[in-house]
Amino acid sequence: MGGDFAPRNNIAGAFEALRDAHDRVEIIFVGRETLIKDALKEFPVAGATAGYSIVDAPDIIDMHDERAASVRKKKNSSIAIGLNLQKEGKADAFLSAGHTGAVMSATTLILGRIEGVARPTIGTFFPTERGVCLLLDAGANVDCKPQHLYEFGVMGSIYVHQMLGLATPTVGLLNVGEEESKGTEAVREAFALFKSGKVNFIGNVEGRDILQGGADVIVCDGFTGNVILKFGESVPGFMKSVIGKHVKKNPLAMLLSGFIRGTLRSALKSMDYEEFGGVPILGVNGTSMIGHGKSTPKAIRNMILAAESMVKKNINGRIREALAT
Amino acid sequence: MGGDFAPRNNIAGAFEALRDAHDRVEIIFVGRETLIKDALKEFPVAGATAGYSIVDAPDIIDMHDERAASVRKKKNSSIAIGLNLQKEGKADAFLSAGHTGAVMSATTLILGRIEGVARPTIGTFFPTERGVCLLLDAGANVDCKPQHLYEFGVMGSIYVHQMLGLATPTVGLLNVGEEESKGTEAVREAFALFKSGKVNFIGNVEGRDILQGGADVIVCDGFTGNVILKFGESVPGFMKSVIGKHVKKNPLAMLLSGFIRGTLRSALKSMDYEEFGGVPILGVNGTSMIGHGKSTPKAIRNMILAAESMVKKNINGRIREALAT
Repeated sequence: MGGDFAPRNNIAGAFEALRDAHDRVEIIFVGRETLIKDALKEFPVAGATAGYSIVDAPDIIDMHDERAASVRKKKNSSIAIGLNLQKEGKADAFLSAGHTGAVMSATTLILGRIEGVARPTIGTFFPTERGVCLLLDAGANVDCKPQHLYEFGVMGSIYVHQMLGLATPTVGLLNVGEEESKGTEAVREAFALFKSGKVNFIGNVEGRDILQGGADVIVCDGFTGNVILKFGESVPGFMKSVIGKHVKKNPLAMLLSGFIRGTLRSALKSMDYEEFGGVPILGVNGTSMIGHGKSTPKAIRNMILAAESMVKKNINGRIREALAT
Repeated sequence: MGGDFAPRNNIAGAFEALRDAHDRVEIIFVGRETLIKDALKEFPVAGATAGYSIVDAPDIIDMHDERAASVRKKKNSSIAIGLNLQKEGKADAFLSAGHTGAVMSATTLILGRIEGVARPTIGTFFPTERGVCLLLDAGANVDCKPQHLYEFGVMGSIYVHQMLGLATPTVGLLNVGEEESKGTEAVREAFALFKSGKVNFIGNVEGRDILQGGADVIVCDGFTGNVILKFGESVPGFMKSVIGKHVKKNPLAMLLSGFIRGTLRSALKSMDYEEFGGVPILGVNGTSMIGHGKSTPKAIRNMILAAESMVKKNINGRIREALAT
């Protein structure tokens, strides 16, 4: 039920995943059965394809619902029922393009934390000049203690190592300067934890290092991470607006305007976050991923295949091993 | 002595200001006299132009110096001597394109705080889809109490009202969501102060509101502000890199590549922070402005004229009036 184009895009994405990986994945559509069945009529492939089932969930948590309250109140939401399927062993992963806060709360509540993890986290991928960077926390934890920041680094490092195939991913601590003495008390103490920790820590990194690819994993509190995430998401729109204004001033540019816009659009695709499919909630006993509210079928497909990979690669077992005392 | 192209660009900028406002400003070059005299030889206008003098300052604080220590140790730095000229009534404003931290520390130490101001601040201008936004604090104060955030809002509001001519500038509090309940404890308490405060407070704003022009003044702690500032500064380079890669893939685009790059360069000029000249340190008894390390002569000129305006408009008197209890 989650996402701006649900259930249509979610179903379309699921069929794309089944087309490409029907021998590896099975889909359970969780939501209002009547709505799902209606939406399925649009897909001729639906009848022919095995590999999916429907579980009815009468409640819908929408974007206006308060995060924590909504999960407690709406016990029959697609989020709660979907996550409980996993708890009961009937599913291996839960995916949503819906209310991030509600999914985060429900996931932590229903699946529980991995031993040794104080704060489950959700990150976000940024495109960089060299590839991609996982920034975490992206908003789940606005107040962070040093130990929380350290956990984020460990979990992020394991995730990109396993999922992106980076041999020894670099981990940077987001700060206002490179020197160890910089930053808030929490960040300075986190620096010390990282120095003696279990990741390939490269020290403090700064705001510019995110897009420049200064580290594979960048750690920050969820307040800073959320502000940066939303700032970053506004960059393509801002660029289009700025270039649009410039093109209007230049007659030759105006002639070529269509072409320039096309070039820009393609070039900006690498800032199109939904291309990464979705991001995992790290630190919980299970697999729960969140996609962009505007997820395309392709993004949903990518998220499903990422979840499959996350389960197969035993990310959670590796996190437990690294953080359990 | 400050800035990557000192003293050349600083002197060139001063002459541009004198050319445009010789009846309103007088320049005192503060730094190593021999270096300044050498550099002046390049400017034929130097001999002919009255309106400038030189004050020798043998010490130089460079970018490798520690912020606070450098000011105490190097008593004869151009920063310390330049600021003391103002304290002694021999100058009305101090301008530097040098070490931001050292200028900030020395300014607070030598000029002192305005009554009612607990934390002097330095902001940064962002271009927006609608014009410009002043974000503060941009890195001077990494740990902020609610009262500090409130002060930043008041000072920023007065500055953009007087300097940019905005009738009732909107002030937004940077947060992870619009709701009053969002964010860290400090931010939630600051929200309450703003609600009953003396500015045109429009509530919480998010990361995307910076470039979208959601508020004329955006308030945050210096940790978040510094990260956003440096992230923003890296955007043009990232865009060039991304578009460069795209152009290589497209034969037609490659043909037009020079033209596209030219268009992009001009369009990106509005993200060229030095065009704003410099930013003031707000909350001190005097006028002290900091320019970009890569300041062009034009940026230095703009900063000089902004400082003149800041003095004439009695920004500090207005801050005192708004914040003194």
